[in-house]
Amino acid sequence: MNDLSNNATETASTAQIIKQIINAWAAQNKAVTTFFNKYEDSVYYEEIAPGRNRAIYLLGHLISVSDGLLPMFGIGERLFPELEELFIKNPDRFFADIPSLADLKEKWETINVALTAHFNKMTPDEWLSRHTKVSEEDFAVDPLRNKLNVLISRTNHQSNHLGQLYLLTESK
Amino acid sequence: MNDLSNNATETASTAQIIKQIINAWAAQNKAVTTFFNKYEDSVYYEEIAPGRNRAIYLLGHLISVSDGLLPMFGIGERLFPELEELFIKNPDRFFADIPSLADLKEKWETINVALTAHFNKMTPDEWLSRHTKVSEEDFAVDPLRNKLNVLISRTNHQSNHLGQLYLLTESK
Repeated sequence: MNDLSNNATETASTAQIIKQIINAWAAQNKAVTTFFNKYEDSVYYEEIAPGRNRAIYLLGHLISVSDGLLPMFGIGERLFPELEELFIKNPDRFFADIPSLADLKEKWETINVALTAHFNKMTPDEWLSRHTKVSEEDFAVDPLRNKLNVLISRTNHQSNHLGQLYLLTESK
Repeated sequence: MNDLSNNATETASTAQIIKQIINAWAAQNKAVTTFFNKYEDSVYYEEIAPGRNRAIYLLGHLISVSDGLLPMFGIGERLFPELEELFIKNPDRFFADIPSLADLKEKWETINVALTAHFNKMTPDEWLSRHTKVSEEDFAVDPLRNKLNVLISRTNHQSNHLGQLYLLTESK
């Protein structure tokens, strides 16, 4: 194999691996969507286990965490900044008034569509560049603190809460 | 940049991204280990939520799923084939006799050390090759069904159960 074809193969590999990581994130999104379309709305106002978060709180939490990727990746401002106070900075039931399940399901779709559109346009170099929460100095020391790493962590974060959500459905 | 240096950069990128995926898997392993070293043994014989799996069952389950990567990646036979019956093929409490927590914690270390040693030796081409559960024909149609994809899925599977395990500790 000459340098040129070798180079082409490597470029294809890098792009393919990044695609696989995006696919894994998308698969978790889809599993969350499927979960929240499976039962009557009232089910999602139940706790996943006695004294624990309600399913609707976890949906709001997942939306707000994904929303945070927009500023973190330098794409733009949060679409739903008001959710941060409700679903990240404070625990479930801290506020009596939270958006309805229908409203949250719509916001979940909106943020996933927005992120997917951006992710599909990002080049491998962009994925391997630093995110806005790490300084240039720190990034020089640890180049693994890149955007791709954030996406991998966020996918695991979603899996983490999905495992908890499944405890609710297993009892139905 | 000439072809050669470009090629070198791409090779470095591919290897770096694979490293990040292995790191994410290792981070989940470490979180599981930390969790099982945090409390007295008796705690892990409790259910993660009423009527759900006991923590010790989930540890056995995670060991046996990781053990399955050995044949799936063509590395060798399972180290602990007897755990499959106990922790994958049957639900918690199906068998009265299961290994002790100390025994399982040792097996968890053993399988992680074995897999880590193999993963660190694998080349990018090996990661992107098919695993033994997909046929050559199916792999030709969908080359994303490679070993790397399995590792990404397994990492999410671990996160999924870790989220459930955390419900136990939050109550302590």
